Amino acid sequence: MTATQTDLYAVRTAAGCLRRGMTEPATFSLFARRLPPQRGFLVSAGLVDCLGFLEGFRFEEGELTGLRESGGLAQSDVDALAGLRFDGDVWAAPEGCLVFADEPLLEVTAPLPQAQLVGTALLNTVSFQATVATKAARCRIAAGGAELVDFAARRTHGFDAATAVARVCAMVGFAGTSQVGAVQRFGLAPLSTMTHSYVQAFGDEQAAFRAYAHDFPDSVMFLVDTNDTLAGVRAAVEVAMALGLPDGGFGVRFAAGDLLLLAQETRKLLDEAGFVQARIMVSGGLDEYELARLTAAQAPIDSYGVGVKLGVSADAPPTETAYELVEYAGRPIAQHVPGKETLPGAKQVYRRASGDPDVLALRDEPSPKGCRPVLSQVMRAGRRLRGKHRLDEARDRFERDLLWLPRSARRLRNPEPVRVRVSEPLRELSERLGAGH
Amino acid sequence: MTATQTDLYAVRTAAGCLRRGMTEPATFSLFARRLPPQRGFLVSAGLVDCLGFLEGFRFEEGELTGLRESGGLAQSDVDALAGLRFDGDVWAAPEGCLVFADEPLLEVTAPLPQAQLVGTALLNTVSFQATVATKAARCRIAAGGAELVDFAARRTHGFDAATAVARVCAMVGFAGTSQVGAVQRFGLAPLSTMTHSYVQAFGDEQAAFRAYAHDFPDSVMFLVDTNDTLAGVRAAVEVAMALGLPDGGFGVRFAAGDLLLLAQETRKLLDEAGFVQARIMVSGGLDEYELARLTAAQAPIDSYGVGVKLGVSADAPPTETAYELVEYAGRPIAQHVPGKETLPGAKQVYRRASGDPDVLALRDEPSPKGCRPVLSQVMRAGRRLRGKHRLDEARDRFERDLLWLPRSARRLRNPEPVRVRVSEPLRELSERLGAGH
Repeated sequence: MTATQTDLYAVRTAAGCLRRGMTEPATFSLFARRLPPQRGFLVSAGLVDCLGFLEGFRFEEGELTGLRESGGLAQSDVDALAGLRFDGDVWAAPEGCLVFADEPLLEVTAPLPQAQLVGTALLNTVSFQATVATKAARCRIAAGGAELVDFAARRTHGFDAATAVARVCAMVGFAGTSQVGAVQRFGLAPLSTMTHSYVQAFGDEQAAFRAYAHDFPDSVMFLVDTNDTLAGVRAAVEVAMALGLPDGGFGVRFAAGDLLLLAQETRKLLDEAGFVQARIMVSGGLDEYELARLTAAQAPIDSYGVGVKLGVSADAPPTETAYELVEYAGRPIAQHVPGKETLPGAKQVYRRASGDPDVLALRDEPSPKGCRPVLSQVMRAGRRLRGKHRLDEARDRFERDLLWLPRSARRLRNPEPVRVRVSEPLRELSERLGAGH
Repeated sequence: MTATQTDLYAVRTAAGCLRRGMTEPATFSLFARRLPPQRGFLVSAGLVDCLGFLEGFRFEEGELTGLRESGGLAQSDVDALAGLRFDGDVWAAPEGCLVFADEPLLEVTAPLPQAQLVGTALLNTVSFQATVATKAARCRIAAGGAELVDFAARRTHGFDAATAVARVCAMVGFAGTSQVGAVQRFGLAPLSTMTHSYVQAFGDEQAAFRAYAHDFPDSVMFLVDTNDTLAGVRAAVEVAMALGLPDGGFGVRFAAGDLLLLAQETRKLLDEAGFVQARIMVSGGLDEYELARLTAAQAPIDSYGVGVKLGVSADAPPTETAYELVEYAGRPIAQHVPGKETLPGAKQVYRRASGDPDVLALRDEPSPKGCRPVLSQVMRAGRRLRGKHRLDEARDRFERDLLWLPRSARRLRNPEPVRVRVSEPLRELSERLGAGH
């Protein structure tokens, strides 16, 4: 990401602030005003990409020339922007943490122009990745103990999105991904079958299966739904027998039709042939609701490939996030516009036992007893602090928070999110500023 | 984009085909099986990015080493993949064209392994960009003649997505974008106001407005909803009078509250002060349905900033597209699986007068009289053919097709898409292949 990944109004107002020496420290808070429909929680995600963006933040020379022409900036503005780096502090809910409405996912404290300029990119990154991580976490909850594989790459919103999706899926417990680039970049497990076009090019299912089992004996997953699924399963069994594949040495996948019925019939065919360990993988338009239906029906499915609806969070593609100024030059700032209320000041979230509400407090309040803070400092003076950014750590954090999450907030439909109680000092400060409004 | 922007199953099946010399020409067709809900058409988009991807297609050495380890490939597979370039042909509905279900957006003819490997990236690019272009076109239809500005960058699915969104919005008639990178890359008009944080940092609306009008006199758009919108409008009027701004020398923007009522009251305040040419810009959670409501109510709004719901196509984020093998080694291939039917052979779409159905035909059928072909060849032997790829050409194409589109297909709710009639030769071929199934 580069510094031009911003909105022009941020550039112009930053230039305006630079002209006027309005460069005192500003704190912006990035949070969800509301959880998306049917969501009982959000999974924090996107932080690692945000930190990389902030560390590399700068305008290139050509970009600034362009901005002078298109953005109505003076040469002095261009000179001032050219020297700009991000040297602020960041506190955040580390990736994998669960958060709720009004709780900051991330807070930036930096000279006002810097903090304004980075807002668009931070909002974009955190909103997108948290939205999809949350969708993926719901799939995880719905799938019982079955294996989940990210199949989203063909329909995410661009290919960078596909890479981010593969990573956040791994964060919430997916076993792997089909996407080659993400496998290589994040060390994820590659999980793969064959294409319909492979089967079709052979013109004969058994010929295609024999060739594949010969060429890739380490992971044989026959795609059986090119024509008739159960006929495809029988073909797979015949090939496995003819080739002497061991039980457990292959599996079958299908993506169309009545998935529950087909899985039951497939299991029967495989078991009757003595392949009781042959795995059944299912894909095709799955989401958490369909996974829950199949899980409840005890469908004999070992692995799910989840794609289209996951990768765009189809039922709730945006999350209503905000990046709001909450303090400038030591002056706390609140917003009281209906529907866009913003609580003032840098914050901390305190988490207690499962079932207790979270406490949303001012960052400098004394920590209440028996609580753990959710936000921690992740960047100081423009440099990320060590640790806490590895994918396996995010995964552990998600598992811990998922155990803590009350059942009522885990529900896929009509969940009750964990309540967020505003601390007395924060409430008093907000009311005091509201009274002056 | 790089060659690793693919699914592992495509790599493995391509490697398998290479081992077996299955490198005859294959034709794949990329089309929507169904239009998304409430859509009466799709706007073709993404083609230019696809052609760039195909021209640059190759595996880098490090990527292939990784694939050998993670993908279960032999060294001979790696060697074969290393030499692979895309040298096929592409036919497509040029960007800006309207297309309907079952009509190809793009068709690739190339040696089978190449055509398999590029499928994931082509599907991703075309599906995403056509989905958002269609959403933006619906906003265009809904807005009457009002100006539209892309404000989506803060909530698209990643920042590459934001850049693509800005471009497809321009394709369907948006006046500009707020996103700096897209302004520079595509020469779009930058349209911008100021941030809430700018107003808040001043602590006083009038002070902020005075400073902004002084610093950026060429495009003064006061953000009036930081506290109370109508009070903000009065503050803007006072500042404009105090500074002696000419009528038409400024505008106001707001994003919260009852937009219709506020627009009416704002217009009244501006007119009473003699600023009858001061522009009113509105944003905040807009989509085509809200735009249609405001247009129908004759809201006095000059310009709309459309963001969150546009950038992710919130009510229909994915389009159900497919990339299917329709011919291999001269043998036409059909698929008759319920819900996944695929018609065989390379195709052409013929368009007639407004109100007539399109004709979906085999590419080598003689062209019917009085029709124009929708698909044209855009790449030959891996090199894009000149022309037809400029943004202004796509814009002209969209305007032409929008005029052609019947009112019943333009409707925002319950539209009737243009019917697609299958030609006799195509129907006969499909039935003949089906009978053999």
